[in-house]
Amino acid sequence: MTRTIVASATREIVIGFDQPFCVIGERINPTGRKKLAAEMAAGNFDTVVKDALEQAAAGATMLDVNAGVTTVDPNATEPGLLVKTLEIVQNTVDLPLSIDSSVTAAIEAGLKVAKGRPLVNSVTGEEEKLEAILPLIKKYNVPVVAISNDETGISMDPDVRFAVAKKIVERAADHGIPAHDIVVDPLVMPIGALGSAGQQVFALLRRLREELKVNTTCGLSNISFGLPHRHGINGAFIPMVIGAGMTSAIMNPCRPQEMEAVRGANVLNGTDKDCMTWIKTYKDYKPGEHAAPAPVQVNAPGEAAAGGRRRGGRDARRSAQG
Amino acid sequence: MTRTIVASATREIVIGFDQPFCVIGERINPTGRKKLAAEMAAGNFDTVVKDALEQAAAGATMLDVNAGVTTVDPNATEPGLLVKTLEIVQNTVDLPLSIDSSVTAAIEAGLKVAKGRPLVNSVTGEEEKLEAILPLIKKYNVPVVAISNDETGISMDPDVRFAVAKKIVERAADHGIPAHDIVVDPLVMPIGALGSAGQQVFALLRRLREELKVNTTCGLSNISFGLPHRHGINGAFIPMVIGAGMTSAIMNPCRPQEMEAVRGANVLNGTDKDCMTWIKTYKDYKPGEHAAPAPVQVNAPGEAAAGGRRRGGRDARRSAQG
Repeated sequence: MTRTIVASATREIVIGFDQPFCVIGERINPTGRKKLAAEMAAGNFDTVVKDALEQAAAGATMLDVNAGVTTVDPNATEPGLLVKTLEIVQNTVDLPLSIDSSVTAAIEAGLKVAKGRPLVNSVTGEEEKLEAILPLIKKYNVPVVAISNDETGISMDPDVRFAVAKKIVERAADHGIPAHDIVVDPLVMPIGALGSAGQQVFALLRRLREELKVNTTCGLSNISFGLPHRHGINGAFIPMVIGAGMTSAIMNPCRPQEMEAVRGANVLNGTDKDCMTWIKTYKDYKPGEHAAPAPVQVNAPGEAAAGGRRRGGRDARRSAQG
Repeated sequence: MTRTIVASATREIVIGFDQPFCVIGERINPTGRKKLAAEMAAGNFDTVVKDALEQAAAGATMLDVNAGVTTVDPNATEPGLLVKTLEIVQNTVDLPLSIDSSVTAAIEAGLKVAKGRPLVNSVTGEEEKLEAILPLIKKYNVPVVAISNDETGISMDPDVRFAVAKKIVERAADHGIPAHDIVVDPLVMPIGALGSAGQQVFALLRRLREELKVNTTCGLSNISFGLPHRHGINGAFIPMVIGAGMTSAIMNPCRPQEMEAVRGANVLNGTDKDCMTWIKTYKDYKPGEHAAPAPVQVNAPGEAAAGGRRRGGRDARRSAQG
């Protein structure tokens, strides 16, 4: 059984086929959020703290942290800003983090300060990326998101995307990195532009699970880009990808319809034991509403508590890997 | 490609893997509806007419019609009442019908008056049922729902349920009935009572599609029996069964959350061409609501229009079967 272990200072989470779906909160990311980018560049982390607390309260399993506030010489500024952001987030909530950057130096700086066992987001099939990122993954013994594109871009042929994923897994093995530490992103296209985007990703997820035996993730809301009532498309897509074998997604946990779909699919997939999380969340549900996030509280564990457990340091964590 | 053809007087619908999910409206059924049972027994069909119109307006593809108002000597009264109910429904809406009865004489009486090509609901793997129903299916050249239980009841072992379905398909073939006219119900258990109920049905659906190559259906809301916020569970279950290969369900089309899940899954499964139905339904969607059914109108085609087409009588229909 494939098990990808991530951890904060004291909380360990398993990503796996027999685990509740891992919701990676996407909010702490200045890409496309001008106001947040300006705040972070000016050393104001109020929104970062608020986003961390809200996502934890809404049930995020872990949080993605991106500090890409500028495309002008990010090598000079991003490492320091990412370190600062990671430190603030891990002092605010006790959730495992995903270190999200396109700057290798920022990823390494982040790895030096992140507590527990963070996820690195990401490597691709590009030679330069492979050679930059995989040694860090090995050195820090952490898992990594592998995006299935390469120098030629994103192939419209799912067989090519599978081949790129396979190449990354093989190259990782050459570096001594096991397949269970590679979380493949098969790349989700907008269904409004490509009518076969859903069927492509369902088929890819099955192959990734059955042939490569890896955990998987995606930028979930891409699927509904350009369509009206995107939450409805996302809310149908989530149970379908979970049914096809996807084990995590980078998404907004503050959207009640999407989180309801995650919780429902966990029940139906048999990973919400005795429907405990469902019953706890919806026992007082009133028709016509989606359950809103619980009130924000510092170090709110959200639902991560269900899948997490206290860990006894690196040795204890290592023994849990299979 | 498996194609099950059903039809009203003038509208033909294909049930199939490459077709929009077939929503069989469940409302016209006095089982568990005391008031409706009393009305129908007294010759009052106002609720039947209302339920027919509302389900059509909400987007039902076809309507199930059950007239089982009593368990006291149903053989004497049900055939006449079912005939009357079918006639009223087919004079109210132009949707294909499902003739739903446990009384063989009622099914045959219904087959004599139903226009187009109705579905018969149902046969089981019980010897007595097989010998009573299959000759009618052959004689009237109609499709039938095959429920995967037999004299021993409903097996908790999905392999046994698959074997029962296979037996029914084989027995139908002995009667000259093709597999594409058998719509198998793999039987859905409440997930609150049986945590593996979802995984069981997903696995069964794949086998039924890949090995028996049959269309499938189920009583959808069984899955959420006993849980809070049942629409949320149903709304996650629908995309998962569609992803696993289910092609129809007996369900309540007047529930906006469930119908949103059907429409979303059709988009993602590639059966809502260019997302036309989705865009038409949700282009003016306001956050926080589910799209309500359109105002009731006589002969409202609902979304059936998308999958349906005018037919040129029995010969034209036959040539479409494969």
